[in-house]
Amino acid sequence: MTSQSTTAAAIAKVSAPDRKMRYDAIFDAALAKLHGEGRYRVFIDILRNKGSFPDARCFAGHNGPKPITVWCSNDYLSMGQHPKVIAAMEEALHDVGAGSGGTRNIGGNTHYHLDLEAELADLHGKEGALLFTSGYISNEATLSTLARVLPGCVIFSDALNHASMIAGIRNSGCEKKVWRHNDLEHLEQLLAETNPALPKLIAFESVYSMDGDVAPIHAICDLAEKYGALTYLDEVHAVGMYGPRGGGISDRDEAAGRITVIEGTLAKAIGVMGGYIAADHRVIDVIRSYAPGFIFTTSLSPVLVAGALASVRHLKSSSAEREGQQASAARLKCALAEAGLPVMASTTHIVPLMVGDPVKAKKISDILLAEYGVYVQPINYPTVPRGTERLRFTPGPSHSVEMVRDLTQALVEIWHRLDMRLAA
Amino acid sequence: MTSQSTTAAAIAKVSAPDRKMRYDAIFDAALAKLHGEGRYRVFIDILRNKGSFPDARCFAGHNGPKPITVWCSNDYLSMGQHPKVIAAMEEALHDVGAGSGGTRNIGGNTHYHLDLEAELADLHGKEGALLFTSGYISNEATLSTLARVLPGCVIFSDALNHASMIAGIRNSGCEKKVWRHNDLEHLEQLLAETNPALPKLIAFESVYSMDGDVAPIHAICDLAEKYGALTYLDEVHAVGMYGPRGGGISDRDEAAGRITVIEGTLAKAIGVMGGYIAADHRVIDVIRSYAPGFIFTTSLSPVLVAGALASVRHLKSSSAEREGQQASAARLKCALAEAGLPVMASTTHIVPLMVGDPVKAKKISDILLAEYGVYVQPINYPTVPRGTERLRFTPGPSHSVEMVRDLTQALVEIWHRLDMRLAA
Repeated sequence: MTSQSTTAAAIAKVSAPDRKMRYDAIFDAALAKLHGEGRYRVFIDILRNKGSFPDARCFAGHNGPKPITVWCSNDYLSMGQHPKVIAAMEEALHDVGAGSGGTRNIGGNTHYHLDLEAELADLHGKEGALLFTSGYISNEATLSTLARVLPGCVIFSDALNHASMIAGIRNSGCEKKVWRHNDLEHLEQLLAETNPALPKLIAFESVYSMDGDVAPIHAICDLAEKYGALTYLDEVHAVGMYGPRGGGISDRDEAAGRITVIEGTLAKAIGVMGGYIAADHRVIDVIRSYAPGFIFTTSLSPVLVAGALASVRHLKSSSAEREGQQASAARLKCALAEAGLPVMASTTHIVPLMVGDPVKAKKISDILLAEYGVYVQPINYPTVPRGTERLRFTPGPSHSVEMVRDLTQALVEIWHRLDMRLAA
Repeated sequence: MTSQSTTAAAIAKVSAPDRKMRYDAIFDAALAKLHGEGRYRVFIDILRNKGSFPDARCFAGHNGPKPITVWCSNDYLSMGQHPKVIAAMEEALHDVGAGSGGTRNIGGNTHYHLDLEAELADLHGKEGALLFTSGYISNEATLSTLARVLPGCVIFSDALNHASMIAGIRNSGCEKKVWRHNDLEHLEQLLAETNPALPKLIAFESVYSMDGDVAPIHAICDLAEKYGALTYLDEVHAVGMYGPRGGGISDRDEAAGRITVIEGTLAKAIGVMGGYIAADHRVIDVIRSYAPGFIFTTSLSPVLVAGALASVRHLKSSSAEREGQQASAARLKCALAEAGLPVMASTTHIVPLMVGDPVKAKKISDILLAEYGVYVQPINYPTVPRGTERLRFTPGPSHSVEMVRDLTQALVEIWHRLDMRLAA
């Protein structure tokens, strides 16, 4: 972006049309920066085909829609197309209509919302839950409000926390200490050097979505207890996916009871849209009563809530989707590694393939789409650190053995064509 | 909330269970504050009846659902139950499924999103539009990003701007100057005393939702041009409602071309859920590329987008809903005034009735619900300033002459019962 002195010179004392041009010049410079770094984003225009996930139609650069296979959806378990979810949404649509018509406080609090909150509280073994319009806003609103309500609060934030958590922490205005990713020694060092009298909050994720690694929840809770800190756990990439009832890594590791606030999303493995937190009644009531991002916004459409409710209920009792997904992820990791492709050491369902260059990552993605009908988005800065640009595959239960084989073969061909190195 | 020294004493050097209790004590104090001020919020549990708006079912404090009439929905035109909207949502649900499965950049960019953005750009006579998951996040993300991209930017904010605009301005970290509500002299004074070299942004609303008054858009644009400021107009309570095609007050007043960014919602008159901005390509591209609240969140469900698209298209060509709504609002205002009830001087579709006390406002609302089957929410601080607590009615095209008569009669009876004064 432009420096302040340049702007000052640019805007001062010029006629109105000239002023418009000066603003435009600043905007153009901001955009040129992205083009120059090879990270200007072009959105791929697609439509999924209900009932035949991961198949979809792509509209970009073709005459009419072209069939593609989606390899980067966060609808990890295809629940967005599950018959129970579709049926529940259709029923709600015909029972109450499209939108809620208001905030939770003014006309937008429906029976569906209360049912889903009870279901989510139960999923995580908490007293209560609270719905938000997105996972992003649930993180932003909860973290910023918690830290504002606790005077002098210091937040300890994992270095790889999601942008929405960073936004909430920054917007709280409180002191932030960033610990090296999953580094318990560093976390303890920062806790130990902080005034014991101050309220503390440790904020972290269970599954880190771009590397696919997992936090040591129990060890972090040990430190939280030792130093008197509250804990905030983002489970958005784990809810529905791990644990006997899909309660996430904290469910799998039997650690949910030690966490103050568990945050999740309805937009990934649940397959719909929206976010939430689960915690004890008191914390839920504080966030419900004080968070602007919860209070001053129209509540989730009852149609979405009904779909999410059906999905959560199904995943509580069915493990078939989780098992199918894990098998598919293992198959893809194995195939990529055997072909000598630089698959990263993920311990979860996420399969990142390191490229290390934004322009190459985009080029591989473009070739896959244009020539192989494979849709996988390149992941560039600021989503991941510069120099670690990658392709990120999210195999689901519906990705077949043949699809894994075809994808691996396509990647090997492209690796050769671009003179990139394969392992021996 | 508690002072910092109290907290320090509370948290320091105590055992883990004790520490938990100290955190709880802070949370309890925050909640007790709300109870003490009579502004602790209890959400009313309702379900609307599709096809017979404003009728609904209420679940609170009864044995089973009780029929009620909703008088406080922001689904101003009942479009959330319009057959075209329901049909479009049902079709999308069966074509592509429940959720989008990703961010706009990673798998969540569908043909529906692009169609709706084109439709909204056209509605406001702008080059482009950009969808967000809510009106709240569209304001927060756009204002904070615009001000960050323009170095040294000063934002001029109307004193009654919505919480989401205030959040965006605060989160940008830029200098903010608040002008008295709709006071052009004060706005000019603040503009004139600001360094002409700095980028400037005037942020305001068209219809202020709690008072129902309207901004002088052309006069504000005159000042913006004179002092070289960009303009940001929140039209959330006007989109669909005003102008020959429902483009809002800026459409009605033929002022849209003078505004840099028009922000709107899909959750009120459009009847669904979501928010958006419309502006020139350059501004849209900057927000699309730099706003964390746009980039790092799952895109709107295609089901919602399809419904909003049908609603916007319908309201572009049909004025029947707008005319019915205006007639209904005029009828209610007239009836309340004739009965001597303190209806406020709204010039729009919003009908606020002044109470001036949070406990009384809640009590009137409770009696209306329990004894008259009328649902209208009390509006208390922080939604409105203390001492201006009110009931806020939003009559729609489906509120009948009989409903207006019954409501007025109920209010007069309650006013008498609570020894409140009626005008002569």
